[in-house]
Amino acid sequence: MSGVPAERLSLNTATVRAQWSLAECIEGCARHGIGGISPWRDKLHEMGVDAAARAIRDAGLSVSGLCRGGWFTASGALDQSVIDDNRRAVDEAAALEAACLVMVVGGLPDGSRDLPGAWKLVEDGLAATLDYARTVGVKIAIEPLHPMYAADRACVNTTGQALDICDRLGDGIGCALDVYHVWWDPELEVQIARAGRERLMAFHVCDWLVPTRDLLTDRGMMGDGVIDIPRLRGLVEAQGFDGLVEVEIFSELDWWTRDADEVLAAVLERGRTAC
Amino acid sequence: MSGVPAERLSLNTATVRAQWSLAECIEGCARHGIGGISPWRDKLHEMGVDAAARAIRDAGLSVSGLCRGGWFTASGALDQSVIDDNRRAVDEAAALEAACLVMVVGGLPDGSRDLPGAWKLVEDGLAATLDYARTVGVKIAIEPLHPMYAADRACVNTTGQALDICDRLGDGIGCALDVYHVWWDPELEVQIARAGRERLMAFHVCDWLVPTRDLLTDRGMMGDGVIDIPRLRGLVEAQGFDGLVEVEIFSELDWWTRDADEVLAAVLERGRTAC
Repeated sequence: MSGVPAERLSLNTATVRAQWSLAECIEGCARHGIGGISPWRDKLHEMGVDAAARAIRDAGLSVSGLCRGGWFTASGALDQSVIDDNRRAVDEAAALEAACLVMVVGGLPDGSRDLPGAWKLVEDGLAATLDYARTVGVKIAIEPLHPMYAADRACVNTTGQALDICDRLGDGIGCALDVYHVWWDPELEVQIARAGRERLMAFHVCDWLVPTRDLLTDRGMMGDGVIDIPRLRGLVEAQGFDGLVEVEIFSELDWWTRDADEVLAAVLERGRTAC
Repeated sequence: MSGVPAERLSLNTATVRAQWSLAECIEGCARHGIGGISPWRDKLHEMGVDAAARAIRDAGLSVSGLCRGGWFTASGALDQSVIDDNRRAVDEAAALEAACLVMVVGGLPDGSRDLPGAWKLVEDGLAATLDYARTVGVKIAIEPLHPMYAADRACVNTTGQALDICDRLGDGIGCALDVYHVWWDPELEVQIARAGRERLMAFHVCDWLVPTRDLLTDRGMMGDGVIDIPRLRGLVEAQGFDGLVEVEIFSELDWWTRDADEVLAAVLERGRTAC
């Protein structure tokens, strides 16, 4: 493994979400020679989908994913507003020619302890979204989140669980693997091999800090934590994954407080040395 | 499920670790009619093993487990001090007639990113401890910890992973299942059935709070969070588990600040209504 050059990196806009608008992210990626971008939908809506699609194309960037669809359990039932919002997300992913629409599926409904019920809601929601996504040629990527988010963000928490859903739903759906969420999993190597190229749709990096001071917003820059990122990248690339390496860092106490160009410079350097 | 009566509960001393010595815990359990106790070794050493064993016997309490052996990765190699400390823990469990010695196996060695290497160290350490434990009739219970502790506390993070180790090591070793660590696992039901009565050696309860404000010390009283504890207790009891239901709550911001008798009264009430 010889590190990841700038043109193989993608900037997830969450990494500088406190500092930059989407327009600034696009300009910044182009200026730093970064190959791709992955917008969050709030930033996308601020800029407008058509304007963003045009600016990204003009800057010569790929879109490694759109963050995010899902959240199927928000109201405790699969109501029309959730289905409609996911259709809009699919349309936005199509407009951006995104490699995939990343799904954060949702946790337990408010006040519920019914985890098997939440799993069922999520799978029904994914099935409905996938049906539509197939008609417009958008790939759906389930992002298994770390088990510490099972209650309040996503009740799909391992690669194996995500792939079981994919196997039941068929073509056009796969996984977005973020090292932060999956690095600990003893089944990871086996499940990445099971996924194969078709179901490996995105690869996200950051690092697990010791100690971790906050469950959501204390993620580290690659190399500052304990994840063996080169090994995990090797596992997905051994299956033929040749997409961009997307950098997504939630860091309230550190990187979100810094100058965004400094953050991007660090991303480039750590791409070369720690990925 | 009709709740857990006092005589089927066990108090893990961590639940009132800020308030009470082991002697006070023993007296408090007897006074509240709680059936058992699970001491942490620091409290046990303060009191003295022989004095504790006698006081526990005199109070008519069972010992649902001794917390804890393990920590095999502390120095990055399986050195004699780690092996010796685990032998002492086995001897202490024997002296207390504990149902099992609970193993928190250790995370990554300091500065290491080699998770497969840590897994190997842990299994070698468990094997060595088990060899000795068999000679004195102590059962070894691996406690899979929540994946958020993989780096700094335990790199065995699922019931399936623990059972794989048990299958390789043979008789006399099993699992201590704490709902806090395993509730999210989509494989849990299957793995509890796989474990069966022989390998289910302890069952711990507390609750997962939303939001969780600290990775280690923000666990909830049963009923205050999102875990369906009666369902999980039903799964282990369906396999024939008839041990005590051990209450272990790390709660810096709440329960550790309260009067210990108030905590025990809440444990009893929630045992009946939320377990």
